[in-house]
Amino acid sequence: MKGVIVNQSDRSLELSDIAEPEIKQGELLIKVSHAGVNRTDIATREGKSGYASNPVLGVEVAGTVAEAYGSSFFSPGDRVMGLVYGGGYAEYAVMPADRAMTIPESLSFMEAAAIPEVFLTAYQTLYWIGKLQKQETVLIHAGASGVGTAAIQLAKQLSDAKVIVTAGSTRKLDFCRELGADILINYKTQAFDEEVLKATDGEGADLILDFIGADYWDKNLASIKNEGRWVLIGVLGGGELEKVNLMSIMSKYIQLTGTLLTPRSDVYKAELSQEFIKAAGTYLEQTSIRPVIDVTFPLEKANEAHQHMEDNRNIGKIILSMPPVEK
Amino acid sequence: MKGVIVNQSDRSLELSDIAEPEIKQGELLIKVSHAGVNRTDIATREGKSGYASNPVLGVEVAGTVAEAYGSSFFSPGDRVMGLVYGGGYAEYAVMPADRAMTIPESLSFMEAAAIPEVFLTAYQTLYWIGKLQKQETVLIHAGASGVGTAAIQLAKQLSDAKVIVTAGSTRKLDFCRELGADILINYKTQAFDEEVLKATDGEGADLILDFIGADYWDKNLASIKNEGRWVLIGVLGGGELEKVNLMSIMSKYIQLTGTLLTPRSDVYKAELSQEFIKAAGTYLEQTSIRPVIDVTFPLEKANEAHQHMEDNRNIGKIILSMPPVEK
Repeated sequence: MKGVIVNQSDRSLELSDIAEPEIKQGELLIKVSHAGVNRTDIATREGKSGYASNPVLGVEVAGTVAEAYGSSFFSPGDRVMGLVYGGGYAEYAVMPADRAMTIPESLSFMEAAAIPEVFLTAYQTLYWIGKLQKQETVLIHAGASGVGTAAIQLAKQLSDAKVIVTAGSTRKLDFCRELGADILINYKTQAFDEEVLKATDGEGADLILDFIGADYWDKNLASIKNEGRWVLIGVLGGGELEKVNLMSIMSKYIQLTGTLLTPRSDVYKAELSQEFIKAAGTYLEQTSIRPVIDVTFPLEKANEAHQHMEDNRNIGKIILSMPPVEK
Repeated sequence: MKGVIVNQSDRSLELSDIAEPEIKQGELLIKVSHAGVNRTDIATREGKSGYASNPVLGVEVAGTVAEAYGSSFFSPGDRVMGLVYGGGYAEYAVMPADRAMTIPESLSFMEAAAIPEVFLTAYQTLYWIGKLQKQETVLIHAGASGVGTAAIQLAKQLSDAKVIVTAGSTRKLDFCRELGADILINYKTQAFDEEVLKATDGEGADLILDFIGADYWDKNLASIKNEGRWVLIGVLGGGELEKVNLMSIMSKYIQLTGTLLTPRSDVYKAELSQEFIKAAGTYLEQTSIRPVIDVTFPLEKANEAHQHMEDNRNIGKIILSMPPVEK
C-alpha cells in the first residue's frame, strides 16, 4: 500500500510503497479515506518527538472498517473516526476498537477526519483538565487554529461559557465570532491582558487554554483570575521561559497544568474518545458543532500540507485525502 | 493592652501599649494565651507582605473567649484556637466565630497555638489542592518545619500515604521518622531526586509539597510522577526561576498549583477550619496527631523568636506566651 514516511536525510515526506499493517485482538484495520495533519506530525518529521515508533506519520483518520479482530461492536463496512498511534498517512491504518468513534451520519469522511485530534484535545483541556463550569470565562489563544475552533464551539455549546479568543487577523477573528466567540482580540494590535480584564470587570479569566507558552507568559499571568486554571498545551511562542517569578503563581493561587494528547496511554485515549462522543455526538449529528476544514491535499502533497500549517495560514484543519492519485 | 508592632525605622519588633480591639457581629474577642510565630510574620516585619492591614503582628492564637458578639456556638470562657488576620501578638485578639476551633481537652493553650497555621496549611495543600488519595506517595520538603511536621502526620494518619521527607540534618530526619515518615533524605548529602525514584520504583511521587521553589525546581521535576500534583507553598530556596523548559511540564502532564493561606478570604478560612477539625479533631484529642513545639518565648522576646526561625534551628513551631512579663 501507499504510505508517507520521513526521508531521514533531508527531513522531507516521501510517498512510499510499504507493507499493509496487521492487526491484533481488539484492533480494527481501517481503510483510510482521510487523515488529519497535526503539529505533532511536523515535530515527528523534524525528528523532535520521541514517541513516534511507527515510521508512517499521522495520528488521526476517518475511514471504513476493513477488518475487526474480536470486536463485538464494530464490523467491516462501519464508518469510523479516531486516533491512531502513527500510521495515519496511509491507505490502511490500525486503530484499537475501544477508541474508534462511529462517524455521525451527517458528516463526510473528510469532515470526520477533522474531528478526533482537535476535538479530543479541546475536550480534554476544557473539561478533564480545565474543569470548565457553566458560564465561566475561558480565554482561548489561537482561536482560529484547529483546537481553537473546536474549543470555542465546545465551550459555548456544552457550557454556555463566555469565550474570549485571540488571533492575529480580522479574518480569523471574524471566523471565531461565527463559531460563537464573545470577545475577539487581535493580539497584533491589542494588549490581550488589558482586553481580558476589561471584559471581566478586572477579575480575569477562569480558564486559559495556552498553546503559546513563553511569549504570552506574563500577559497570561495578568489575564487569569485568582484560583484560575491555566492549561499549557503548546509552545508555539517558545518553550523556554527566561525568568519566572514563583510568587506570582502563589499569590494568585494559580493552577498550571501541562498536557499532551499523542503520548497518552491507550486506556486514556479510549476513555476520552468515549466520553467525548457521548457529550458531543448529538451536537455533531445536528451540526450545531462542526469540524472546521481549511483545505484538503491529496496524500502525495503531504509536504505542501505541512508547509501550509507551518505558515500559519490555516483556519481550522488541514486534511489529507486517500488514496493518492496514481501516476 | 500590650501588643507587638513593627518599628518602621529599624524593622525590629516593639512591645507597645495599644488599644484593645473591638469586635463586630459574628466575631469573638479572645484573651490570648499563646500565639504562633510564622514566616509570614517575618515578611510582614520586613514590610514585604502587602496584606497586613493590622499593625499588630500574628496570624494564629489560642486562648479564652472573653466576649462573643452574636455567636450561638461560643460563649465567654470557651477555649478556642484559630487564625486571626493580624493582631495575634497581643493580649487580646479578634477572631471571626466561624473559623474558631474548640481546643481538644487533651491540649494545653501552648500546644493549641501550634496548630492552626501549620495544620490548616498542611490540610489545605495535601487535600484541598493536592487531592492526596489513600496510599499515594507524597514528597514533603522541609519535613521538620512546622508545616512539614503537620503534613507528615496528616498524610500518615488520614491517608496511610507513603511519606518521603527531606531535611538538612540527622536530628531533623530522626524526628520526622518518629512522626511516621517512611523515607528520610538528607538533602545535604544525598540527591533527593535519585532517592525518590529509588523509593518509588522509578515512578516518582504522586504529590510534592514544595516550600523551597527555585533551588529544588529541577530535582522536583525529576521526582514527580507523570500526572503528579506539585503544590508550591513557599520560596525558601528562592522565588525567581531562570530558564524554565515548559515542555518538561507538558510532557509529564504536571499540575503545578501555587497557594498561600494568610491572604485567603474569610469564607475560605472558615470552611477550611471547620473541615480540618472534623477530619483531624479526634486524632488531636487522642494525641495520635500532635502539634510539635520547638520553643516558647515570652511575648517581649518576639525579636529572638523571629531570629530563631530565620536561623532555621527549629523543629516544629515557635510559640509566644502572653501576657508579657511586666517590668
